[in-house]
Amino acid sequence: MTQMIKSRAAVAWGPGQPLSIEEVDVMPPKAGEVLVRVVASGVCHTDAFTLSGDDPEGVFPAILGHEGGGIVEAVGEGVTSVAVGDHVIPLYTPECGECKFCKSGKTNLCQKIRETQGKGLMPDGTTRFFKDGKPIYHYMGCSTFSEYTVLPEISLAKVNPEAPLEEICLLGCGVTTGMGAVMNTAKVEEGATVAIFGLGGIGLSAIIGATMARAGRIIAIDINERKFELARKLGATDCVNPNDYDKPIQEVIIEMTDGGVDYSFECIGNVHVMRSALECCHKGWGESVIIGVAGAGQEISTRPFQLVTGRVWKGSAFGGVKGRSELPGYVERYMKGEFKLDDFITHTMGLEQINDAFELMHKGESIRSVIHFDK
Amino acid sequence: MTQMIKSRAAVAWGPGQPLSIEEVDVMPPKAGEVLVRVVASGVCHTDAFTLSGDDPEGVFPAILGHEGGGIVEAVGEGVTSVAVGDHVIPLYTPECGECKFCKSGKTNLCQKIRETQGKGLMPDGTTRFFKDGKPIYHYMGCSTFSEYTVLPEISLAKVNPEAPLEEICLLGCGVTTGMGAVMNTAKVEEGATVAIFGLGGIGLSAIIGATMARAGRIIAIDINERKFELARKLGATDCVNPNDYDKPIQEVIIEMTDGGVDYSFECIGNVHVMRSALECCHKGWGESVIIGVAGAGQEISTRPFQLVTGRVWKGSAFGGVKGRSELPGYVERYMKGEFKLDDFITHTMGLEQINDAFELMHKGESIRSVIHFDK
Repeated sequence: MTQMIKSRAAVAWGPGQPLSIEEVDVMPPKAGEVLVRVVASGVCHTDAFTLSGDDPEGVFPAILGHEGGGIVEAVGEGVTSVAVGDHVIPLYTPECGECKFCKSGKTNLCQKIRETQGKGLMPDGTTRFFKDGKPIYHYMGCSTFSEYTVLPEISLAKVNPEAPLEEICLLGCGVTTGMGAVMNTAKVEEGATVAIFGLGGIGLSAIIGATMARAGRIIAIDINERKFELARKLGATDCVNPNDYDKPIQEVIIEMTDGGVDYSFECIGNVHVMRSALECCHKGWGESVIIGVAGAGQEISTRPFQLVTGRVWKGSAFGGVKGRSELPGYVERYMKGEFKLDDFITHTMGLEQINDAFELMHKGESIRSVIHFDK
Repeated sequence: MTQMIKSRAAVAWGPGQPLSIEEVDVMPPKAGEVLVRVVASGVCHTDAFTLSGDDPEGVFPAILGHEGGGIVEAVGEGVTSVAVGDHVIPLYTPECGECKFCKSGKTNLCQKIRETQGKGLMPDGTTRFFKDGKPIYHYMGCSTFSEYTVLPEISLAKVNPEAPLEEICLLGCGVTTGMGAVMNTAKVEEGATVAIFGLGGIGLSAIIGATMARAGRIIAIDINERKFELARKLGATDCVNPNDYDKPIQEVIIEMTDGGVDYSFECIGNVHVMRSALECCHKGWGESVIIGVAGAGQEISTRPFQLVTGRVWKGSAFGGVKGRSELPGYVERYMKGEFKLDDFITHTMGLEQINDAFELMHKGESIRSVIHFDK
């Protein structure tokens, strides 16, 4: 394929503006690149964060979206690991297998294309999207709010074609992030006591992860009690609203658990909650994992005594999951029924209604809205 | 033994005052307690910290000192694990083997007598030291600045009687803390790159630990360049003075190491250095261990992005070493020549000169002064 094609896309022209449905031009994939037809895409808080203008890496105009499922439509020169017709999940954290990070065996944070991806560009420093001859930036290397998008080969996980793309698209970000943080980053063991702060898509996925890890007690914390029913359904044993107490929530949890939890997860992006999550951990061994993304320039703090007495503070991005080698296994576990995804999908809609998805999210009425491109 | 005895001791009558050499009364050991004749004791920054009045747990009058070596003089009722004549190292972190912490297998922070120890009392809530009938408080459960002292049985590690108490007393605190943080808490592996901030007794011991772990590169950081010679002798491959650079030391180290270190250790107690130590770690996997004790109420801070991108922030107390079960093994390794202690001992003196030891420390002229009670 050497011709550009037309694609429907939701374009973010500038910070704070609603997305605009446009017909854009998509250039053919260059060497090492792949053209993907997006079948479905979740709408995530990170999309909203960038759209708000608070993301220091945000550039405009851009095509947002990073939680997609699609089918390979064409491949560029030299692409061997995927072929036309393969079902794929785009990866905002690629896996090249060659860089210092991939080879370390200690992290999933492949840095091969980090620099260009962070600028909204393909690895060669240009974009594949244009409108009236003017370039439109990529987003997180994915841009799944376009029916057709171009990605580097190393940013695609090839998955079981029998899996429903309208559901497993959620494994492209939120669900894997939450489950992976519990299973990969913290390695929660059977019987452990766990606290999960924030019951959005990530927090609820962390509950699933804790349930799969057979945690003995799963404490779900949110100020929006409407989230508690689903949290309990997914495995939470206790639901706590911090507004019900006069004292700091970390003290409440320490009392509930005779000394603190074995593991805690911050799934919001609030630096004050990050501190609470650390300090509710058990002296001697409690570990707290930051998953949420805080606003630019915000800082976490605590007394060093918290760490000297044995607590550990860490973080997790994309659940510590290596996309190409490990994500297909998550899809298989889903296909075996080890966890469900439809609990998360509260709304589905066509691309034209995508601004409604952002509004539902801001109102706290949705867990995940999924855009179906054929609607 | 049911009689009280007289003992020479250095008494801290109040914060900020020089220690006063006194003859004090030492009560006989009660059930589960042991009377120890202290042969030698190191003088540590923590003693100075408490003496300054900045330690929120500090109580006066007290007999300080927690880095000792001694010989069992008498045992109280029910004591079975040590006998008269045994050589012992007092432990400010006991090991009861029965509490939730000891049984967890995850921490050395035995909590069995934490509450009374923190108040300067024996487990029954009283003191064994008196002067003119008035009680004098214990310190960190040790009070090794008295020739005779009383400790709980669970606060004594029985060690090889052939080891020189005047040297292995340093394993009662500083040396074990530094070595253990590297080998137990961080588990530094062969070939790893390590940064050590602060070259006092703890930092130099951390260098020994990194050398024993066969770290590939050991970067020693201090603003006092007089420490560099010994640091190099113990195994440091690079010595860095932050005052030689205009930019933050974390940036200097990241450039030196092509991305940051695998492990860093803060051995000072300065919350700003703790931040530098974290931020000089390599993205994706670098781990920073806080060993130093910060002043009351001080806080550490950083951007959560540092953790979300894979760095880990933890701490270590007494090097994560379980005193009764593991410290005798450290003594054996010392006896086999795996590491030396005399490099640390820059000064020795009798109890009467103990205030000189504090002065040498404050001037940065000593690594460790060791009090010999027979001098």
